[in-house]
Amino acid sequence: MGAQILLQVIFIAALAAEAMSAALAAGRRKMDWFGVCVLACVTALGGGSMRDMLLGHYPLAWVEHPYYLLVTCGAALVTIGVARVIDRLRWTFLALDALGLVVFTIIGCDVAIGMGESPLIVIVAGMVTGCVGGVLRDVLCNEIPLLFSSELYATVSIVTGAVYLAGLQWGLPHQLVIVIAVLIGFPLRILAIIYKWAMPKFVYDKDSW
Amino acid sequence: MGAQILLQVIFIAALAAEAMSAALAAGRRKMDWFGVCVLACVTALGGGSMRDMLLGHYPLAWVEHPYYLLVTCGAALVTIGVARVIDRLRWTFLALDALGLVVFTIIGCDVAIGMGESPLIVIVAGMVTGCVGGVLRDVLCNEIPLLFSSELYATVSIVTGAVYLAGLQWGLPHQLVIVIAVLIGFPLRILAIIYKWAMPKFVYDKDSW
Amino acid sequence: MGAQILLQVIFIAALAAEAMSAALAAGRRKMDWFGVCVLACVTALGGGSMRDMLLGHYPLAWVEHPYYLLVTCGAALVTIGVARVIDRLRWTFLALDALGLVVFTIIGCDVAIGMGESPLIVIVAGMVTGCVGGVLRDVLCNEIPLLFSSELYATVSIVTGAVYLAGLQWGLPHQLVIVIAVLIGFPLRILAIIYKWAMPKFVYDKDSW
Repeated sequence: MGAQILLQVIFIAALAAEAMSAALAAGRRKMDWFGVCVLACVTALGGGSMRDMLLGHYPLAWVEHPYYLLVTCGAALVTIGVARVIDRLRWTFLALDALGLVVFTIIGCDVAIGMGESPLIVIVAGMVTGCVGGVLRDVLCNEIPLLFSSELYATVSIVTGAVYLAGLQWGLPHQLVIVIAVLIGFPLRILAIIYKWAMPKFVYDKDSW
Repeated sequence: MGAQILLQVIFIAALAAEAMSAALAAGRRKMDWFGVCVLACVTALGGGSMRDMLLGHYPLAWVEHPYYLLVTCGAALVTIGVARVIDRLRWTFLALDALGLVVFTIIGCDVAIGMGESPLIVIVAGMVTGCVGGVLRDVLCNEIPLLFSSELYATVSIVTGAVYLAGLQWGLPHQLVIVIAVLIGFPLRILAIIYKWAMPKFVYDKDSW
Repeated sequence: MGAQILLQVIFIAALAAEAMSAALAAGRRKMDWFGVCVLACVTALGGGSMRDMLLGHYPLAWVEHPYYLLVTCGAALVTIGVARVIDRLRWTFLALDALGLVVFTIIGCDVAIGMGESPLIVIVAGMVTGCVGGVLRDVLCNEIPLLFSSELYATVSIVTGAVYLAGLQWGLPHQLVIVIAVLIGFPLRILAIIYKWAMPKFVYDKDSW
């Protein structure tokens, strides 16, 4: 019970953190307040929405709980007012973002498990939930998604999902599995940022045919 | 009855107008005739399609009424032939586009109302129907969506949806509510174009972390 | 029976070929190994996924057969190792890609036929299956989709779909119709590449209003 409620609290905090990061990205492109809100919603809720549309899992989370939209738009609008201060909170944001990645992943895995999907799809569902929001943000900002070339991010999501799924399949208590997954995924992401751990790049310089 | 039929007529005219605007955008990027048709279909029908996929509302409008595809492709191909003339019809297009925004919004709200969604989701559904087509057009043209920084557009959609929903909830006759929503939304959009009303911008110039 | 199995074999080979082409595109943008796999999956499986989401046809193919993901990721990772050699296999790739276009189209048409869609939607479903993967790849690589301005590609898909549908409606045996569709679509695409057949371009140089 405790872990589930904690998961929900972290989820809402992570929604807000994703929304605030997206709002800053919108501000760098001089978007208007409406654009700021849209980019925040797409970034914070796009991963879960994509997962649900891929799996045919209706209604979408924010359709069922419309206050998610208010949380993200509220966080985005607050960001406009306090943008100067946020700059000093870099590590708070990175920590919330890392927590969010892990929690989004676990929630995404749960949805797929609840639909009886196979293990590979469960892990993919977790990864889509954790990562696709940022991809959509970058597409709307007209950039090649950062996800494809930066520090370990999707990998953290995959590891978290695999640990979570393995724990459940070994019959460990649900709460314990959640705690283990967070305790592995969260530090992994933080260490990846500190030590700039990244996947190897594939560099191919021949012209297109 | 009259208002419903009029709504349908305006809807078809707005589909064609959206398709023609998109065709001009395609021509500016030297797309081929096929690309012109695809961009027209995505622009004119993408908002409604996205709404239906987000809400799980199947079949999509153009799947049920395939002639919508013929209307948009037809309008796009005609545009190729008459592009030189269209330039003089700027205000006709802007008026049709404004009418389309309002009508798309009302139709989108109706779909969500029919699915028993909550008021916030009804307004979001209207806005997605009215605005997402243009966002998809800009993404396919490799540009940051205009929607996020230009004159009031999404705001007009939100106001229209809110008025429409409020009218229905107050128990006013459906036809009257449609007329009121159009009479508020349409001039609002036209005035926004004339007087360049826009949402305030959020400008943030610190580098990415 | 034979044609159906052959179709499935070609489908898997085409998945791998699409994945390998996408991996090279990822390498040109210096993506990491994860980005290479994502771009490969989106390119190879994105068309079918979009078709299924537009039609409300769940579960998606790769959710039902998760090994499709392993085929595409495997092909993408192999590409990283053998990139230098691949350069000499240009025509092998173009041939596999052309076969894939035709086979994807036929499979897409079959899905829509199985759902009882109208002829126009059947052809659109085939075209979406064959073409949308490449569009998504280009959007993620931050480019205007090649599909909209290059040699006949979508047109080949439309012709293939129309031939396939016509054959079935004339009551010809299913296997024979598959063979005929491949024998028309495949050479058409190859000839289009050799002779640079393309749709006429629409060039419009007036500024945006």
